Amino acid sequence: MDHRGRQQRVQDSLSTHRLDALLVTHPANLRYLCGFTGSSGALLLAGTKSVFITDGRYTEQARAEVRTAQIVIARQGPLAAATAAWLSAQQKKGRQARSKIGIESEHMTVAARSHIARMLPSGFGLREAPALVEQVRMVKEEEEIACLRSAVLLGASLFDRALEVIRPGVRETAVAAEMEYAGRTAGAQAMSFETIIASGERSALPHGRASQAAIPGQGFVVCDFGVILSGYCSDMTRTVYVGHPSAEARGVYQAVNQAQQAAVDAVRPGISVSEVDRAARKSLQRSGLAKYFTHSTGHGVGLEIHEAPRLAAGQKEILQPGMVITIEPGVYVPGKWGVRIEDMVVVTEHGCEVLTPTTKELVAI
Amino acid sequence: MDHRGRQQRVQDSLSTHRLDALLVTHPANLRYLCGFTGSSGALLLAGTKSVFITDGRYTEQARAEVRTAQIVIARQGPLAAATAAWLSAQQKKGRQARSKIGIESEHMTVAARSHIARMLPSGFGLREAPALVEQVRMVKEEEEIACLRSAVLLGASLFDRALEVIRPGVRETAVAAEMEYAGRTAGAQAMSFETIIASGERSALPHGRASQAAIPGQGFVVCDFGVILSGYCSDMTRTVYVGHPSAEARGVYQAVNQAQQAAVDAVRPGISVSEVDRAARKSLQRSGLAKYFTHSTGHGVGLEIHEAPRLAAGQKEILQPGMVITIEPGVYVPGKWGVRIEDMVVVTEHGCEVLTPTTKELVAI
Repeated sequence: MDHRGRQQRVQDSLSTHRLDALLVTHPANLRYLCGFTGSSGALLLAGTKSVFITDGRYTEQARAEVRTAQIVIARQGPLAAATAAWLSAQQKKGRQARSKIGIESEHMTVAARSHIARMLPSGFGLREAPALVEQVRMVKEEEEIACLRSAVLLGASLFDRALEVIRPGVRETAVAAEMEYAGRTAGAQAMSFETIIASGERSALPHGRASQAAIPGQGFVVCDFGVILSGYCSDMTRTVYVGHPSAEARGVYQAVNQAQQAAVDAVRPGISVSEVDRAARKSLQRSGLAKYFTHSTGHGVGLEIHEAPRLAAGQKEILQPGMVITIEPGVYVPGKWGVRIEDMVVVTEHGCEVLTPTTKELVAI
Repeated sequence: MDHRGRQQRVQDSLSTHRLDALLVTHPANLRYLCGFTGSSGALLLAGTKSVFITDGRYTEQARAEVRTAQIVIARQGPLAAATAAWLSAQQKKGRQARSKIGIESEHMTVAARSHIARMLPSGFGLREAPALVEQVRMVKEEEEIACLRSAVLLGASLFDRALEVIRPGVRETAVAAEMEYAGRTAGAQAMSFETIIASGERSALPHGRASQAAIPGQGFVVCDFGVILSGYCSDMTRTVYVGHPSAEARGVYQAVNQAQQAAVDAVRPGISVSEVDRAARKSLQRSGLAKYFTHSTGHGVGLEIHEAPRLAAGQKEILQPGMVITIEPGVYVPGKWGVRIEDMVVVTEHGCEVLTPTTKELVAI
């Protein structure tokens, strides 16, 4: 991974936002910019200078992982204080440190900000920076797409296990357990989020984490899950039917399937994310189901399970080649049933490539 | 769970801190105060009034879970905006809303705070509140201790599985996979943190999450893991030896075991957490190993894996009956080996009760 180049892209964007430096503290951004995988550290990017600050627990790890920044081990935590102390020391040494320091306001807590602000020497000020690192992260490099591809394939293999396990009377958690075990033994570092297995009426809950409920003899089962492999996340949803699906059930499923395909077909460089969202909703309108589609159409995926861009009405982000996003419309009829179908796709030069290899035909068990 | 009583205890503490209201947004605090288990909501506590605000995704869930607060479903997100809008509406209705609103500064992001601040009607101001809910959460109710006891027992059963699986040549991730599978099938909702299986030289890493490394033919294996059951976390560490331990290895293990026992023996109501930390360090000094004990002695556990109090030098919290804490000294010799032993204990009227049932004798495999 080209950590130096990534840092440079962020550093190049600082002056546009009238910042002299950026203090990066969000773990996923730290990993992206300098390879550090620990839970506590800070990277100060200023001009062409990069300083990585962590504490004694991570001395070995920082030396092993961080090759593209000067490493400072803070003698005493918390990190915020250490960062402020380092800036202060720079000032005393007469090295004119920079004055307007951007912070990651979407990630830094109010307490951490106050702590740093109190300790900052005069001449320094904190500014809420826009999501500069997330902007760079949005477009994936070839190497990242390869990682995501591997994660997607491993993730998809868990669905094969789900098909073997899902039967009437089996608890949702038991299905999740078998899938997670299959993922772990295949080398997944962890699941990328809490596995959703939502059967029967629970399928109408968009966030129906696997519960102790037993799968009923008849009805949809929404399976939404993903793995983390080499730090990168996968995310997919398939909905199966237990029992013999009625014409109505088949109809709902087909409507969601068509909406998902319509959104996939809309993905290409140069259009806005809201157009992709609109394509899915327009498709569902034809079957009168659009009012039951109560969430956004998708989101970016990478080192985090939810990244920019968000595919929703009103969002203005323009798709670019290299973006990796989910396409996941769903229909939820409270007290009755729900269906969601989700793929991961990568935006290409002329359209997109669907990464998820799994069939979208309705599987009845 | 007595949600109303808990809210009352927080409400009673508001005037001490010159707050007219508290805006609770941290998910674990929301769950504690009103039972809501979703990921996005806000509870406004003012005087005797409790208002829970969430968005359309959680309508059903809020109605099912939240019985002790007025429920407001925000028509449009984000939540912060909805909260500000609600306050504004109250003001327009002439119901004199309160003016100094405390925020959870350790949890709220700078961006969320700015967002609320911009939308607040005049007459309202935001203040960084101390960790009022965490203070109440620190002392567990009988019902919570029962939940923690169940989680600890389930968690401990995973160690039995580890003992069956740990063998030279087996990957650390494979051990983690078997333990997690055992946990899931026994009903655990999830692991309470990423399972640590650190073998050979990796045992010297205090945060050695299970890697693809194969367990060597000789050396310590640190196993640190826990489950979530009914929302409550367990946390335990045992260190086993693969092969025949040398006298030196036995010596290090015994030193950690004695330090752990010394700290457990120190736990009783009325003493400060730093005294417990000191007891462990003093014990390790006798064997000259104190310099290799590089982290704190323990932490509170409950709805979150890391809660107040923190058992470390300089911390002033006084132990009270009902607190549930970990006692987990360790010794880490970089490049060589590491040993950690961790129990969960509950502070009782006259001392403490160790909840973790597992032997602390050195197990050689």
